[in-house]
Amino acid sequence: MKKPANLVASFMSVFAFISWKAMSSFVLELARKRRSVRRYLPRDVGIERVLYGIRAALEAPSGANQQPWRFIVVKDADVKARLRQVCEEGERRFYEKVRGELGEWLAKRGFTWEKPFLTEAPYLVAVFAELGKPYAVQSVWLAVGYMLLALEEAGLASLTYTPPNPGEAGAVLGAPRRFALQTIIPVGLPREEKAKEPRMSLEDAVFLDAWGRRLDGD
Amino acid sequence: MKKPANLVASFMSVFAFISWKAMSSFVLELARKRRSVRRYLPRDVGIERVLYGIRAALEAPSGANQQPWRFIVVKDADVKARLRQVCEEGERRFYEKVRGELGEWLAKRGFTWEKPFLTEAPYLVAVFAELGKPYAVQSVWLAVGYMLLALEEAGLASLTYTPPNPGEAGAVLGAPRRFALQTIIPVGLPREEKAKEPRMSLEDAVFLDAWGRRLDGD
Repeated sequence: MKKPANLVASFMSVFAFISWKAMSSFVLELARKRRSVRRYLPRDVGIERVLYGIRAALEAPSGANQQPWRFIVVKDADVKARLRQVCEEGERRFYEKVRGELGEWLAKRGFTWEKPFLTEAPYLVAVFAELGKPYAVQSVWLAVGYMLLALEEAGLASLTYTPPNPGEAGAVLGAPRRFALQTIIPVGLPREEKAKEPRMSLEDAVFLDAWGRRLDGD
Repeated sequence: MKKPANLVASFMSVFAFISWKAMSSFVLELARKRRSVRRYLPRDVGIERVLYGIRAALEAPSGANQQPWRFIVVKDADVKARLRQVCEEGERRFYEKVRGELGEWLAKRGFTWEKPFLTEAPYLVAVFAELGKPYAVQSVWLAVGYMLLALEEAGLASLTYTPPNPGEAGAVLGAPRRFALQTIIPVGLPREEKAKEPRMSLEDAVFLDAWGRRLDGD
């Protein structure tokens, strides 16, 4: 039961409700539209559109505002080919060992050690975290979230690919050791339409006030 | 030098350029506008607006689509008070030890062990990562990035606060051990205007094709 203290509070509540209803839901629409894309058209999309995504990432909050991120935009075909080779070597070793639930999930989707998107996409964005900075990995991945939504807005497909051997892949790009490669994001135009993987419902993922207490029980 | 293979390619390039110029930059504007807020008005903002942020987070990609996240929306004043008490105990122990660059950064901003936002904000969103899932922590923080932008769009201020004793804070909420508390995000209306902390320039944060090779050298 709400008991507004006075008329002003009542008015404010109504106003808040109306402005909420009139609100855009652009971010949610972008988030729903975006899916991970593994095959790309070789067509160039212009580096400015890729940088748009990174500009958004640079605005993200970070532990003690240390901005523990660096980005390498890879456009050069030879560098992409070397990266692909090193990552696929890591993948081959990984696929020889993978078992269980994850192995089944990968097999079901036809995933193998081959990563053609690393040479197909017109751009790769390698993202690094500066180890030793507070919450470095967490901050970088939060910024990657910003980046994916901005790329979607720019009409660009993306994938957060992490090789099983990030140290070797980072070395290809000449990164100093204290900057750990987090992900290599291919960016470009999708070569195929893909359905979005299903998501948990709000009711299954969100509790109210305590673990296990469901929202709809309120 | 670009050498379009034929007239169609030329036309496509021009079209891509025009549609890019006409593109919105809504995500970047939200990202630029958002800042971390540490003091909140006690006014309720309605749980639907908070859930809007979480709806966006639930659309994020995750390792093998395992969606290794759970959210607890805390509205109850007693639960908030207990959380604040446990977090502040952890903070007191942390502040007794903190030194060096981080200590200076904290002192300069007047940060102490006190975390009033944990009881001031009308809602807290506790975010958990399911340990053992592939890239669980990374996936959860990427989703937090989605959430912060969606909350900003909904006109709500937020902060990614992580207590130094996340295990103890997670236990207050009754979370099972394999779900590790990542952050407690106060959500509400800001009690004060705050300038945005400065950010690195694009030129300092982004390289082209190799570590250290600057964009403007292209």
